[in-house]
Amino acid sequence: MLEKFFKPDSVAVVGASIKEMKLGNQILENLLKGGFPGRIFPINAKADSTTRIMGIKAYPNLVEVPHSIDLAIVVVPSRWVPSVIQDCGAKGIDSVVIISAGFKEVGEQGAELESQLFKLSRNLGIRILGPNVLGIIDAHHHLNASFAPANPPPGNIAFLSQSGALGCAILDKAEGEGIGLSKFISLGNKADLDEVDFLAMLKDDAETDVILGYLEGIGRGRDFISVAKEVTSRKPVIMIKAGRSEGGKRAASSHTGSLAGQDEAYDVAFEASGIIRANSLREAIDLARGFSSQPIPQGRRVLLLTNGGGAGIMAADACEQFSLELANLEDQTKERLKEKLPQDSSLANPVDILGDAKSDRYEIALEAILTDPNVDGVIVLLTPQSGSDEDETASIIIKICPETKKTILTCFMGQKKIKRAVEILRNNGIPNYGDPEDAIRVFEAMFRYGEWLKRPVEVVKTFPVSKSRVDHILNESIKEGYLEIGGERALQIMKAYGIPTVENYLVKELDEALEVAERLNSSLAMKIESPVISHKSDTGGVLLNLKPTDVETSFCKLREMAKKIVEDNRIRGISIQPMVKEGKEVLIGVSWDDVFGHLIKFGLGGKYVEIYRDVSTKLVPLTPSWTKEMIEETKVISKLLKGVREEPPSDAMEVEEALLRLSQLVCDFPRILEIEANPLVVWEKGGVVVDARLRLRNGCS
Amino acid sequence: MLEKFFKPDSVAVVGASIKEMKLGNQILENLLKGGFPGRIFPINAKADSTTRIMGIKAYPNLVEVPHSIDLAIVVVPSRWVPSVIQDCGAKGIDSVVIISAGFKEVGEQGAELESQLFKLSRNLGIRILGPNVLGIIDAHHHLNASFAPANPPPGNIAFLSQSGALGCAILDKAEGEGIGLSKFISLGNKADLDEVDFLAMLKDDAETDVILGYLEGIGRGRDFISVAKEVTSRKPVIMIKAGRSEGGKRAASSHTGSLAGQDEAYDVAFEASGIIRANSLREAIDLARGFSSQPIPQGRRVLLLTNGGGAGIMAADACEQFSLELANLEDQTKERLKEKLPQDSSLANPVDILGDAKSDRYEIALEAILTDPNVDGVIVLLTPQSGSDEDETASIIIKICPETKKTILTCFMGQKKIKRAVEILRNNGIPNYGDPEDAIRVFEAMFRYGEWLKRPVEVVKTFPVSKSRVDHILNESIKEGYLEIGGERALQIMKAYGIPTVENYLVKELDEALEVAERLNSSLAMKIESPVISHKSDTGGVLLNLKPTDVETSFCKLREMAKKIVEDNRIRGISIQPMVKEGKEVLIGVSWDDVFGHLIKFGLGGKYVEIYRDVSTKLVPLTPSWTKEMIEETKVISKLLKGVREEPPSDAMEVEEALLRLSQLVCDFPRILEIEANPLVVWEKGGVVVDARLRLRNGCS
Repeated sequence: MLEKFFKPDSVAVVGASIKEMKLGNQILENLLKGGFPGRIFPINAKADSTTRIMGIKAYPNLVEVPHSIDLAIVVVPSRWVPSVIQDCGAKGIDSVVIISAGFKEVGEQGAELESQLFKLSRNLGIRILGPNVLGIIDAHHHLNASFAPANPPPGNIAFLSQSGALGCAILDKAEGEGIGLSKFISLGNKADLDEVDFLAMLKDDAETDVILGYLEGIGRGRDFISVAKEVTSRKPVIMIKAGRSEGGKRAASSHTGSLAGQDEAYDVAFEASGIIRANSLREAIDLARGFSSQPIPQGRRVLLLTNGGGAGIMAADACEQFSLELANLEDQTKERLKEKLPQDSSLANPVDILGDAKSDRYEIALEAILTDPNVDGVIVLLTPQSGSDEDETASIIIKICPETKKTILTCFMGQKKIKRAVEILRNNGIPNYGDPEDAIRVFEAMFRYGEWLKRPVEVVKTFPVSKSRVDHILNESIKEGYLEIGGERALQIMKAYGIPTVENYLVKELDEALEVAERLNSSLAMKIESPVISHKSDTGGVLLNLKPTDVETSFCKLREMAKKIVEDNRIRGISIQPMVKEGKEVLIGVSWDDVFGHLIKFGLGGKYVEIYRDVSTKLVPLTPSWTKEMIEETKVISKLLKGVREEPPSDAMEVEEALLRLSQLVCDFPRILEIEANPLVVWEKGGVVVDARLRLRNGCS
Repeated sequence: MLEKFFKPDSVAVVGASIKEMKLGNQILENLLKGGFPGRIFPINAKADSTTRIMGIKAYPNLVEVPHSIDLAIVVVPSRWVPSVIQDCGAKGIDSVVIISAGFKEVGEQGAELESQLFKLSRNLGIRILGPNVLGIIDAHHHLNASFAPANPPPGNIAFLSQSGALGCAILDKAEGEGIGLSKFISLGNKADLDEVDFLAMLKDDAETDVILGYLEGIGRGRDFISVAKEVTSRKPVIMIKAGRSEGGKRAASSHTGSLAGQDEAYDVAFEASGIIRANSLREAIDLARGFSSQPIPQGRRVLLLTNGGGAGIMAADACEQFSLELANLEDQTKERLKEKLPQDSSLANPVDILGDAKSDRYEIALEAILTDPNVDGVIVLLTPQSGSDEDETASIIIKICPETKKTILTCFMGQKKIKRAVEILRNNGIPNYGDPEDAIRVFEAMFRYGEWLKRPVEVVKTFPVSKSRVDHILNESIKEGYLEIGGERALQIMKAYGIPTVENYLVKELDEALEVAERLNSSLAMKIESPVISHKSDTGGVLLNLKPTDVETSFCKLREMAKKIVEDNRIRGISIQPMVKEGKEVLIGVSWDDVFGHLIKFGLGGKYVEIYRDVSTKLVPLTPSWTKEMIEETKVISKLLKGVREEPPSDAMEVEEALLRLSQLVCDFPRILEIEANPLVVWEKGGVVVDARLRLRNGCS
């Protein structure tokens, strides 16, 4: 599938031009300069039987080409594109790259044309990349069907870009810095083929070991996640997702008309699918260089080898920042080093072989260190000092490197004196980073990816629940015209899914209230039940810490108050609950993201939720292992649950189960857009939801 | 002062050698290669009347040189250094750079030698840079008295480095990337001259506009701050402070034997003195390039100009991340742009002049944008696309740049195609950054520095207090043998400085207790008062929410309990307090840092302080404006004090005053090492300290 986009035997350029600076001209030039081994057919409406463009015979249209064509590159003005697609159909071409702009990105009319184009191609069985793309490159097949002014060397990194301009920047960098690419795909408007299609294809591409992507928005969120999960189980995927900020989002939507969704959801989705999110171009390229050339570290124990104290200290700082461990060398290794290194060398980690270290000292140290079982990887630091032999040291490293399965990254710092050494390293599969932080960040990401590869199989746990009860309550509320549900009904829904809730008695009359109070024999809470009063405590509709003797006056007070705010038939009654004993207050909830669907949240609960913002978020359906991670991830509430000083720990298992049941609830009822329990009060043993609310999608589902 | 270190007329190299690869040889070579315009005297003990080193007449010792010598560079083995210093004295040389290693950094014996050296030089009136340094460079004076294998071009950035190795890396980078330096100073062991001396000197150095530094530790913390404050009022100071982490600190102390102090204290001290802290070499150099060539922005409103949507989006994201504003162009400017730019251009911010933009379009846009009063600075983004003319665009930018006082930074992205353009920009005072984030980070730091320059004069407020009362309590406690003071005494100390405290009655006998209880007529707290029980609540020594009828049994219970733990004569009695009404619980306190002295803290209080970690820290003495900032800076408690939803705001003024008074207390009593009030309960009006403790320095002061 998609084979002909990358390995075509023949390519037609529709809109090829003799005029320089025209895109059609540039694409043809790139094809030729790139050394495309197959046939090339320039198509120009004005061509006659003698026309040649850049020395190649041209044709007035696709149909008149007397050979079969695998791939068509279209660069004619947007209004002519549909007729070219018709020609493709007639000619039996099923793979088309539409370079032309002037579609969705320019407004409504363009969007109309684009959707027309899509329908047409679908009918004709044609797959389209574009419109509004920079083109496509397969460096191994010598296919450069793009108008990028660059020709990257072949390598094992595939690069997908939603921005043509950034594509140009990265291709230029790849060419300038010798970063080898397998394929480059400019995604553009994604009328047909999108990141999901190409990810799926790259999964099995033998020429690609690492996938790098720049995205502004994803169309098919759930498909993306399931495909990405499969891909990342085989090879690393590094993504830049731009449009984090409001300003960035606005710019993105005017750029490629992307549906952005909440940026936070991308973090969650990338995490769930094992994608490594990069925050800048440099970070992305740094990562790609590491992943594409070095083995994944089997642990987090890093050894720092340096010829300068300062560099070692900065690297040690970075290790802590990125939660890596400084490896402890075995005594035996230290002995070996002590024997052969100068006396003043430091054999702790960082291992400092001193400013006058030449390559031989690096060799001695590396050979000893790499055989030490306590070391998972090495960062070799070098500052160009007067005695340093940078090039020789690089040569030593590349000689030793193939003998080990451990991760080796280098950090030769400086510029002029290390230039050649960095080239030697790079050409032999050792990525060099200019700053210790960068090398360590890459190491950490590689380690984390290794953990991802080793992760256990995820199993979604299902509990026996009362689906019909929830169905009934939802229908009842919808029938009454309410899409927001709070109070007693929300608690009932939670309860139907086995989430523990506070005892709640809905009463209509005073004598009922008194009867309940007597039965409960406890300090009480009383709340107005009305679907139109959503924030009850803000409107005074909640009375707390009542004694049984307070019930009568409280009942009347609440009823009076309710009558002032809403019509009588909108009051369902008054809820009476026992006051729950103190515990840790947590929040559990689910929200909706337009791209990725349901997101589940856990955090510190109570009335100051918005202030503390101690929340972690995962994708639904939730699995037991993600649930544990979710709780662990919070900064404050995870520690509070463990118990502070003399406190006993709270019942985290109860919280985990509640989260899993909540996940099951929204999976069973996709019409629930949002649901929240706050607080869920957790004790040493057990816990209860005290208040809850939910919101349903408008329309049926 | 220190003039002769940088602008000597004559230099002697003591330890000059004919052997290549010897440091003495390399320093001489650097002096010659650097084109030093003055006289050079190689000194070598074995020299006779015919000896020449690198063609220059050599002498067996300093004394025999028949000319005056301004600066001596010493590279002989450490044990011979003292006698060289003697010679310097005899010869009247008062400026000496000691390159030689083998002092404090190698252990006790070396430290001994170093202190001997220091005393000797002090007696002889000699100032020493070193030992264990890379050397010193004055690029304008063509003085390269270092063994760094680099020769940086002259410029306006001075660079101080505690690490010789990192010095080499930066010098190599400076040379390779054309970053101009005024001076380079390797600080080494800082036996005599240190960062404080050089900062003071660089303040008035006309050749230096920006100071860049790498430090591992500071010796004279308070001096550093006061000098740094003066310097940063004139020119920006950018510092890397390595050794943030435990691992890094360990490595640092074994490296130059630095006294590290708490890393957090460096953040506080740098902030207080207007120093910009850089987290990596790259960041430091990025900042230095921006500050050294562009004007300080007068506001935070940034205009992004781009030829690619993706780059614009990433830049907009970065603006939000670094709290900059996207400038809103005036309608008039937009009209001007609309007239002259292609129809599909985006005139919002980012201004997108499209992928086929050539230099003329950049020119049109820049000219309009730079005259817009809503714009404080511009980031010019360029991705090398097929139609781009990178070099021409660079030329346009450097043509327009001198006509404006606004900050212009560029972000030409890529490598090969932009290389020449980046050089054109750099050579004309426009720093280019490879990633939008980097440019924006620099812009933000420059903006922040502009705010620093505009800051109001700081005035320390002093309150009338009872110093003698505190003196008395401290002496009493010290006399009893206790350096830790809690409970009633700590509250008394706070009270003596006008910090509101809860009413507290210390009673010895039951009848006194009953009397107090009757008078208070409130819910009560009772606490054992003993200087040996510091964490009372952990040991059950605190009883809360007592009714007056509980007093008798509580009194007996506490007394029994106390007797079990401590001897009778160690119990001062029992404190009785009224329970205070609920409020926001904050913490105020002061801790001690070995480098910078007293640090004052404010944060969320209560029993979960360690969990929330919502604390901000400043230097003592605190000023009113720093106090406000300190409260603002906290993430949670600042918002809680403002009141959430229907809540009224709490009395922040009360907190501010308490902090200022606490600052005054520790300034008046430097023997207080630590003091903490937690909680200070704050209400809508007023507040009280409920519990406090302090710790005194061992020995008198």
